[in-house]
Amino acid sequence: MSDETPDEAGLTKAPSRSHGRLSARPVLRPRDLFDDARAVRGAWLARVITLFPQAFPGVLEQSLTGKAMDLGLWRLETYDLRQFGIGKHRNVDDTPAGGGAGMVLRADVVDAAFNAASAGASPDRARWPVVYLSPRGKPFDQAMARRFAACEGLTLLCGRFEGVDQRVLDHHAVEEVSLGDFVLTGGEIAAQAVLDATVRLLPGVIGNAESLEEESHSNGLLEHPQYTRPPEWEGREIPPVLLSGDHAKIARWRRAQSEALTAERRPDLWARRTQV
Amino acid sequence: MSDETPDEAGLTKAPSRSHGRLSARPVLRPRDLFDDARAVRGAWLARVITLFPQAFPGVLEQSLTGKAMDLGLWRLETYDLRQFGIGKHRNVDDTPAGGGAGMVLRADVVDAAFNAASAGASPDRARWPVVYLSPRGKPFDQAMARRFAACEGLTLLCGRFEGVDQRVLDHHAVEEVSLGDFVLTGGEIAAQAVLDATVRLLPGVIGNAESLEEESHSNGLLEHPQYTRPPEWEGREIPPVLLSGDHAKIARWRRAQSEALTAERRPDLWARRTQV
Repeated sequence: MSDETPDEAGLTKAPSRSHGRLSARPVLRPRDLFDDARAVRGAWLARVITLFPQAFPGVLEQSLTGKAMDLGLWRLETYDLRQFGIGKHRNVDDTPAGGGAGMVLRADVVDAAFNAASAGASPDRARWPVVYLSPRGKPFDQAMARRFAACEGLTLLCGRFEGVDQRVLDHHAVEEVSLGDFVLTGGEIAAQAVLDATVRLLPGVIGNAESLEEESHSNGLLEHPQYTRPPEWEGREIPPVLLSGDHAKIARWRRAQSEALTAERRPDLWARRTQV
Repeated sequence: MSDETPDEAGLTKAPSRSHGRLSARPVLRPRDLFDDARAVRGAWLARVITLFPQAFPGVLEQSLTGKAMDLGLWRLETYDLRQFGIGKHRNVDDTPAGGGAGMVLRADVVDAAFNAASAGASPDRARWPVVYLSPRGKPFDQAMARRFAACEGLTLLCGRFEGVDQRVLDHHAVEEVSLGDFVLTGGEIAAQAVLDATVRLLPGVIGNAESLEEESHSNGLLEHPQYTRPPEWEGREIPPVLLSGDHAKIARWRRAQSEALTAERRPDLWARRTQV
């Protein structure tokens, strides 16, 4: 990346009061959300490019993912896309070529953000995937979360508007990933979902490996129903088998419940399973 | 719901300093995240039951969904599940009947939260769905977002741990909804995704109806690639047809691109489409 990229040119020409974190070389100084002495060099690193850096870490700061962050098992850096915008208004988008509604994120602006977020990251996409969250992408699933968790880090571009100029996605060998068959206002929530699902699979994040094993989707079946105290509630009892103490019988019952539930609710998963 | 429910009993017996928002009848006084005079009575209402109310509204406060909230087009209330917990430690969960890893949310605790969140809401699930976010559920999609947007409101239960006692889900005719085939630490991010996708479909939220029409999944096809200025970037050109000014030709090109992309990336969607 040369010194002539639009983002830095723009920043030099017109530092804007509306961007408090602006510095001489902001691209080299992302807002680091984990600035703690316990940060382990080499910890799994997430880099998120977004127009809403204030939305991070959001719920990722809580619970398991937050504790893992405190322990230095992963780090999160955000890159404010606006800082790479062009001109005094720091424009990041323009109208779609060929007409149509909405706005498209510019190739040069997104390129500058990708370049900034690539500092120190492996250029090998197998070790450090670069992901654009979009309903056009490959559906995110547990296998993808496992693949991401086995990498050194992950760069996530959160879109807004109609989309991103296709050329910058091609140029940077960006993987398009979709959270599902629905349309979100932007990629920020999708990025948080991808990070949450991935971070919990990092070594040391979940103490009890059994808990990972048993849950939905790790064996291609939906999880069986769960019950806890009290044994009777509103006239409803816990299925007696679960209170029998017969572990083999309990395991068989749970398995049968999982299979029935999967066949009923997710014929697609069930079909894939019975094909094998 | 009687006055003897565990949550209120617990609250009366042991007000805890760790819960600053505790009041005599907290179940009737949820933390209202939209306390503005512009709030329209009858606006679409989201009620979220969660152990992490501080994670809301999160990114929903930004951009389109945030503006819609400011305009009173929707409202968000959170219900802190902890406030319905039992005893001086406000326990919300217990070990699974029949053994196994993790913890299960108690039926009585979740019941109290559902009862609180049902105040003033239609008991008709077709007008006001009650949803538990779980990987065991029916996959969330754009059709479900449209259905939710056509309702008066939506109650969302965010799980944690291994799951929720099945009896309370049965008792309240709760719809289980999954964000996708991956496992999240909790339901909070999933709830935000459901709300984001739903709120943007509410009348008045997106000005340009065309933008809703064109995007991925509204016609069962993935969106065509997008381009914007500059016409040449890093030796890559915008496809000349998009600069031709021939609208019929542009529409045909985009359609062909959408079809090719869908067939390549989403054989499942493509198969469903060609069956019709």
